Amino acid sequence: MSRILTVDLGTRSYPIHIGPGLIDRPEILTARIAGPQVMVVTNDTLAPLYLEQVERALGAFQTARVVLPDGEKYKTPDSWGRILDELLGHRYARDCTLVALGGGVIGDLAGFAAACYQRGVALVQLPTSLLAQVDSSVGGKTGVNHALGKNMIGAFYQPRAVIADTDTLRTLPDRELAAGIAEVIKYGLIRDPEFFTWLEANMDKLRARDTDALTYAIERSCRNKAEVVAADELETGERALLNLGHTFGHAIETGVGYGAWLHGEAVGVGMCMAADLSARLDWLDTASVRRIRSLIAAAGLPVTPPAEIGPVRFRELMARDKKTLDNRLRLVLLKNIGKALVTADFDSTKLDEMLVSSCPQGC
Amino acid sequence: MSRILTVDLGTRSYPIHIGPGLIDRPEILTARIAGPQVMVVTNDTLAPLYLEQVERALGAFQTARVVLPDGEKYKTPDSWGRILDELLGHRYARDCTLVALGGGVIGDLAGFAAACYQRGVALVQLPTSLLAQVDSSVGGKTGVNHALGKNMIGAFYQPRAVIADTDTLRTLPDRELAAGIAEVIKYGLIRDPEFFTWLEANMDKLRARDTDALTYAIERSCRNKAEVVAADELETGERALLNLGHTFGHAIETGVGYGAWLHGEAVGVGMCMAADLSARLDWLDTASVRRIRSLIAAAGLPVTPPAEIGPVRFRELMARDKKTLDNRLRLVLLKNIGKALVTADFDSTKLDEMLVSSCPQGC
Repeated sequence: MSRILTVDLGTRSYPIHIGPGLIDRPEILTARIAGPQVMVVTNDTLAPLYLEQVERALGAFQTARVVLPDGEKYKTPDSWGRILDELLGHRYARDCTLVALGGGVIGDLAGFAAACYQRGVALVQLPTSLLAQVDSSVGGKTGVNHALGKNMIGAFYQPRAVIADTDTLRTLPDRELAAGIAEVIKYGLIRDPEFFTWLEANMDKLRARDTDALTYAIERSCRNKAEVVAADELETGERALLNLGHTFGHAIETGVGYGAWLHGEAVGVGMCMAADLSARLDWLDTASVRRIRSLIAAAGLPVTPPAEIGPVRFRELMARDKKTLDNRLRLVLLKNIGKALVTADFDSTKLDEMLVSSCPQGC
Repeated sequence: MSRILTVDLGTRSYPIHIGPGLIDRPEILTARIAGPQVMVVTNDTLAPLYLEQVERALGAFQTARVVLPDGEKYKTPDSWGRILDELLGHRYARDCTLVALGGGVIGDLAGFAAACYQRGVALVQLPTSLLAQVDSSVGGKTGVNHALGKNMIGAFYQPRAVIADTDTLRTLPDRELAAGIAEVIKYGLIRDPEFFTWLEANMDKLRARDTDALTYAIERSCRNKAEVVAADELETGERALLNLGHTFGHAIETGVGYGAWLHGEAVGVGMCMAADLSARLDWLDTASVRRIRSLIAAAGLPVTPPAEIGPVRFRELMARDKKTLDNRLRLVLLKNIGKALVTADFDSTKLDEMLVSSCPQGC
């Protein structure tokens, strides 16, 4: 029932295991532990649910744990420092392993700690949210937020394995499930039009947490992500397409304050905005824009930005994005459903028009 | 008059320029700048000496600077955070470049900031101390100290170029020159016996800062380092030999408090201790131990550990070293002058005997 994909990065290649009941199969996890010492990093929502199960699977190893408060607002240099303090406090050696048990925040934090502890120790991702299973746990992006921008401090650091136990999605709040579906839709939009069509037909099943539908969507998402990462690990080219909706999304997340909106919710709106702008540039037909907006709405996601961020503030926030090169704003836009491009070469007045028109009444 | 070596790491290969007057040749530096924005990181001792010269060479670029207080005790997560704050405060983009103008502390700090800012930006090392020119600027080790251990937080992150202007050594205090020579002697000891013999014949010239002797010693040291790094970038094997004397040395540095001893001074004593232990294990003849001790003393370096660290405290401090795997102490020891090995397989009572006998009277 479970599937295995591979992220092909030469000597640093690693497997992605997808399926139910994986945490209860200790051999999958223990095969990837580097030495005798293991540190499990998780949060206070997930610890009561899964930590005991994971520590049981690690029975033969010396284990310790860091339980952080739950939420994006704790994805900070301070939390990262706390993990490092614990590793040093326990005198963990260079052959220790970090296990990231959680969603995107935990994966990014534990991943960045693994990247930096003694200049790099082993890391296993055990993603428990849909967003982490289809996106953030795969591909080696790790990091923390800074008061002046999201994900501004971090590293590319690949795990030794990703173990996506679909059973953990049972305890995921509906809102977080929807946020994960945003990233799933993204793969359809940027490079997999058949998958987009499949999602239109199967959105109800996904929201009802049908195991087969979820497993299929996770596997297909990870396959897309693994292909992109293998072709462009450090995001010098194609990988940037994975940021569809993210420049708009990050502006929303920063504008409302980290954590008020979920990352996937902001990306959902961001993809609507990217589609809208693509249509205004005559790159995308309006029927496709309607399909995109409908699918995002069907996932239970917002499709308009928050009322408190007006067009001027929006541009200010976007100017701070990592994708701003030479002070020219670069965006991921759509040529079709299943075909995206990164470009700084667009009519900027169309962007302004889109921002004004996207804003809810009263902006 | 200047020389160029290459650190051969495939697509990440980079040049090491060695010679006088290199800062005054802007084309060498500017050829390695990634985009329009450059941040020079230096300290308050070097800024009045060289910062203007470097900024003049960067005339065509947008430049900013971070001037940190001078000293090993500032090689902290806080100083690293300050560099990142400045990069964000200036809204520097992903194609910016950090220039590390300074010794080992500045190189490690700026290097680690470059490794982490937006998951990695361009880095040029402009080492101004002998230690940095022959060792720390080459090979990609970056990082900061933690209250519980030296260099415990960091990354392997390669620069785009190392530019070692030998003119900068003119302003180096004698004590720091000697500390740099410790690392030079190390290359002779671990893999280059001819160089060791050359050093025995030319130590007076080096201490008198004879330009030709210094340039030769720097080039030969960098050639040794570049070969080791190319063969084992991430220190899974041979690269560990570069840590000769460092486990003992780190114990001294931590024991006396960072900054009281220079790194090279502690490594000098550490190499004497490694030689002594190697002889007690019957791996090295006593005539070689005498030659090693004489050369280190001739460099103006201490050859006995500080009185305040007794044998018991020494072992405690060593147990915390990164080279402790599975709680077994691994040491770099000598089979001959020019031949070293890493091993945990030695008679531990000989280590205790050496520690007791190395301690100055009264321990």
